[in-house]
Amino acid sequence: MNAPLQNDTFLRACLRQPTDHTPMWLMRQAGRYLPEYRASRLAAGNSFMGLATNPHYATEVTLQPLDRYQLDAAILFSDILTVPDAMGLGLSFGAGEGPKFAHPLRDEAAVAKLAVPDLDKLRYVFDAVSSIRKALNGRVPLIGFSGSPWTLACYMVEGGGSDDYRLVKTMLYSRPDLLHRILAINADAVAAYLNAQIDAGAQAVMIFDSWGGVLEHRAFHAFSLAYTQRVMNQLKREHAGQRIPAIVFTKGGGQWLEQIAATGADVVGLDWTCDLGLARQRVDDRVALQGNLDPMVLFATPEAVAAEARAVLDSFGSPQRADGRWGGHIFNLGHGINQHTPVEHVQALVEAVHGHSPTLRQAAAAR
Amino acid sequence: MNAPLQNDTFLRACLRQPTDHTPMWLMRQAGRYLPEYRASRLAAGNSFMGLATNPHYATEVTLQPLDRYQLDAAILFSDILTVPDAMGLGLSFGAGEGPKFAHPLRDEAAVAKLAVPDLDKLRYVFDAVSSIRKALNGRVPLIGFSGSPWTLACYMVEGGGSDDYRLVKTMLYSRPDLLHRILAINADAVAAYLNAQIDAGAQAVMIFDSWGGVLEHRAFHAFSLAYTQRVMNQLKREHAGQRIPAIVFTKGGGQWLEQIAATGADVVGLDWTCDLGLARQRVDDRVALQGNLDPMVLFATPEAVAAEARAVLDSFGSPQRADGRWGGHIFNLGHGINQHTPVEHVQALVEAVHGHSPTLRQAAAAR
Repeated sequence: MNAPLQNDTFLRACLRQPTDHTPMWLMRQAGRYLPEYRASRLAAGNSFMGLATNPHYATEVTLQPLDRYQLDAAILFSDILTVPDAMGLGLSFGAGEGPKFAHPLRDEAAVAKLAVPDLDKLRYVFDAVSSIRKALNGRVPLIGFSGSPWTLACYMVEGGGSDDYRLVKTMLYSRPDLLHRILAINADAVAAYLNAQIDAGAQAVMIFDSWGGVLEHRAFHAFSLAYTQRVMNQLKREHAGQRIPAIVFTKGGGQWLEQIAATGADVVGLDWTCDLGLARQRVDDRVALQGNLDPMVLFATPEAVAAEARAVLDSFGSPQRADGRWGGHIFNLGHGINQHTPVEHVQALVEAVHGHSPTLRQAAAAR
Repeated sequence: MNAPLQNDTFLRACLRQPTDHTPMWLMRQAGRYLPEYRASRLAAGNSFMGLATNPHYATEVTLQPLDRYQLDAAILFSDILTVPDAMGLGLSFGAGEGPKFAHPLRDEAAVAKLAVPDLDKLRYVFDAVSSIRKALNGRVPLIGFSGSPWTLACYMVEGGGSDDYRLVKTMLYSRPDLLHRILAINADAVAAYLNAQIDAGAQAVMIFDSWGGVLEHRAFHAFSLAYTQRVMNQLKREHAGQRIPAIVFTKGGGQWLEQIAATGADVVGLDWTCDLGLARQRVDDRVALQGNLDPMVLFATPEAVAAEARAVLDSFGSPQRADGRWGGHIFNLGHGINQHTPVEHVQALVEAVHGHSPTLRQAAAAR
């Protein structure tokens, strides 16, 4: 039995319920910019997956940013590539390099062998979720996550990161049947994976479509959004009587917000190229919005950080509308926090959001 | 005295005048995917700048794609970084690497010393333009170009390419005064540079805002678009009685098309994330549109290449409107052609555009 939630501001904002301040968390908030994270990572054999596969370490690093900053949500410490690793593609992280797969999907035979993995191979993730929930002891809600089917497919076909997505796009245009097979399997695997995270204690889930924005617009709909929709269609939306909000974030997806909102997501994540006020008009508060400070702002002076944070909040405006209903805004970056970010600038950011966001509500109340 | 133009389809489409087919050219059409280009480059000491600074070689490689394919425009063979090189930043291209500047702008003193360069240092560019015009002998029009003030500033501050634009964005948020000074000088230099290309014989000009799309939306307007506008305000729009069309291309700028169109550009370039039909509605044929095939399509089968090319043309629709007026479409890629592109796939692309685009007009005429 988990402890009752002491701070439900994040969940309330996701569901467009009244809040007294704008909740915030930061993508990749448990990460290399924190000295305590670097110490834990060294202790775990200087290995990212050493941290992620060990529930003790995963719990420790998940809580580190919460001990340092007044954040309104925790996010599971893990990687989006755990699912294809469990499919047998052989994930590794070279020193100073990005992820690599030993067995990328390059031909029809490899695609034919692909299947939804036995979730028992991902037990370490669900154990980490349970362990983190216990350690949080109701401080803030815990967010689970996965890569989107398309984003996973990019890595699975390319075998790692890419500048131009040549291999996966060649498959897309030349053998769309193979790519559709990968994406369908990915979608079913992601849905099962997220549902198991929810069963283990995740109180919200987020789908990271990190590479949706590299697709041609029709291809985005057919090869990314259609499979995010397939995940959404299978996703548990309630657990133990609680609504489980779902967040969909397509980096570079600013042209497709209405369609992303129509997947049934409770929250749409935005990168910094989007005008938050205009985005809100476009989706007309049918969903909450999450974002969207440029992570590079955190390299500016603390005064500039605070000013830019206020500008993001002002751009959304008061979550309470003139008609009395509420929209929802979750403050976040528009992408993961950079590893070289000065920790004291993050403190300036948190103070600015918690200091400024209540005043937006007072202005609306006085209206 | 240059020879009269035999194929003015490109210029007519830029100015939204009637055309019997959709003109096409390809960004970076003179480049490494062509075996004859690789041979010329070897002859020039295996050096990109060896080609670009020698009017004989620059002319030779500019004409190579026209000899191979039925393209409707030539584009000056050069690099966007010639201007900062002329400012004294010391451009070099390492083997297999991107461009590097020996003297990037990292502090107030370096920025204070920056000035619009003596155009005589760019004489090799204007000589190449004159030489190419003569060699073209009226076959097709010649496009001149420059990087946008913001895109040049990215390289000038970062000292080369970047994944995260950390240095230039830190300057943007912490010392906007320094960045505004760089951008103002860049804008005046770019305008003078493009005007000198026009004087030398360029029949259209294009501004490449390759990195506008990495900016936060308010920053895009203040630090990219405002300085593209400053270029446009100084640009010659006629030469020797001929209108000189101006094309503005912001990669990743799909959310800002209306504002880009309002700079006074004749043509707005689009990357492949934009729905061309929707873009046309948004700008309501006040400008012509250029684009927007994903260059990665060229790695698919020739049949798939042709199908995707037709889909791009169909997405724009007939350039002739129901009200009898004309919009304009120039077929292009949404970014430069990849160096590994198979040459025969480019042939399939050219045939598809020249084969399919006249039929769009017949359908409109029969309407």
